[in-house]
Amino acid sequence: MTATLSGTELAAGIRAEVAAAAADLTAAGTPPHLAVVVATADESSAWYVRSIARAAQRTGIACSVVDLGETATPERIGAELAALSSDPAVHGVILQTPLPAGAVFEDLAASIDPAKDVDGANPLTLGRLAAGLPAFAPATAEAVLVLLDSHGIPLSGAHAVVVGRSTVVGKPAAHLLLQRDATVTVCHSRTKDLAAVTRTADVLVAAVGRPELVTAEHVAEDAVVIDVGTNPTPDGGLVGDVDAGSVTGRAAGLTPVPGGVGPVTTALLLRHTVTSARC
Amino acid sequence: MTATLSGTELAAGIRAEVAAAAADLTAAGTPPHLAVVVATADESSAWYVRSIARAAQRTGIACSVVDLGETATPERIGAELAALSSDPAVHGVILQTPLPAGAVFEDLAASIDPAKDVDGANPLTLGRLAAGLPAFAPATAEAVLVLLDSHGIPLSGAHAVVVGRSTVVGKPAAHLLLQRDATVTVCHSRTKDLAAVTRTADVLVAAVGRPELVTAEHVAEDAVVIDVGTNPTPDGGLVGDVDAGSVTGRAAGLTPVPGGVGPVTTALLLRHTVTSARC
Repeated sequence: MTATLSGTELAAGIRAEVAAAAADLTAAGTPPHLAVVVATADESSAWYVRSIARAAQRTGIACSVVDLGETATPERIGAELAALSSDPAVHGVILQTPLPAGAVFEDLAASIDPAKDVDGANPLTLGRLAAGLPAFAPATAEAVLVLLDSHGIPLSGAHAVVVGRSTVVGKPAAHLLLQRDATVTVCHSRTKDLAAVTRTADVLVAAVGRPELVTAEHVAEDAVVIDVGTNPTPDGGLVGDVDAGSVTGRAAGLTPVPGGVGPVTTALLLRHTVTSARC
Repeated sequence: MTATLSGTELAAGIRAEVAAAAADLTAAGTPPHLAVVVATADESSAWYVRSIARAAQRTGIACSVVDLGETATPERIGAELAALSSDPAVHGVILQTPLPAGAVFEDLAASIDPAKDVDGANPLTLGRLAAGLPAFAPATAEAVLVLLDSHGIPLSGAHAVVVGRSTVVGKPAAHLLLQRDATVTVCHSRTKDLAAVTRTADVLVAAVGRPELVTAEHVAEDAVVIDVGTNPTPDGGLVGDVDAGSVTGRAAGLTPVPGGVGPVTTALLLRHTVTSARC
């Protein structure tokens, strides 16, 4: 039996807690405010931004979307991030991807004040995480840990294998797992015999952005599989990095897509925003 | 046959290159200058600082040791690091460990200007490394890579296992190996069956600070073993994290202690200092 490790109820619980905190903050004269900077006409990006804005509004957090257009220069984007960071009425600043050609995400994200870096994008934030100092973890990476915890999956001494080495998910997830005393392996496109490596995992995190890459042959019996992938399908749907049909029956647990990591990620972004507003 | 992967000649080559650069800089009116901040009476730390100062002077780099004493407060140490960072005549700033009780290395190192952070101690530096942005890597972690390269050990697709998860060595070494397309596993004190994990390594990096922890049973035949450990022995000698007697004959290559990672680390610190002085 493969348990479905849903994120829906968990996310709803976090949003309820956030809504209560947002109401308190608003009553105290500090209405929490999240700003999202966009410089793309990408449709799936627009869909994601709308879903964040909706979730924010439903929990009582104001959400500004600052659309600089797909021809925005890196200078313009950096200046906007700096301006929002120094605005005392703004508590969280997110830079949405993709970016215009020539703009480097990690470089621009350095303009986000770490205190408002609610999606952990500033390289300083990643460094602080790696050094074990307080920081907002990238929400997707943190969602992996929060999901594992909510389903009671033990991490200390477990072997966690992360497929994907992105700065926004794979690497911070590896640091968070390491901090929780897992032995951590990071795999990627150059890994030889990926399936042999991933089969050694007690906890397998697929964060590579390749639809249904992970199949039954990649998964040990009784492994727990967290699917971070959200790959759009031609018919307008969403598919993960894990082939759920293949893995079901073999893994001990699997997060669904949609309804797994995604809603928890959004809820954590909102939680970070109220945490920032409290400080 | 186990090859001895010496760092001595490699370090001498780097120092010669640094000496030439230092002479040019001095002739051009910018004599390179390294400052080491000390707040301990620890004898092995004092020994290490003297060896850095000697190596600096021999390559034409001025080296100031600022000894704040073992009762220095974190505020005093942070202020000194900030003052040296803003001194245009200083090009490299190192904070020596151990620190007085109550002082947190990573917190204090945040006061070192990243442009002068020649031992990669500032959390921002680690974040920039992890994000693939230019930064001075911690010299010990970089020495691991430079040693592997100098002996022609291939890394792309190789499985590298790092034993130790410190912010100064294990984690940055893992990022550098990942950047070079190795599949990377980080082990530590909570790892279950350490020997079973380390035996899967093509490249094994021992950076755990436990004398002779790694023995033949931890090492696959034909693995390359890099010993980062420098553990003082009661008789005033130095022993690595690898039991060289046990591993010799099994591994394809092993770095000696002393004469392996150590001299390369010092040479890289000096190289970082002249690089900083050039900017």
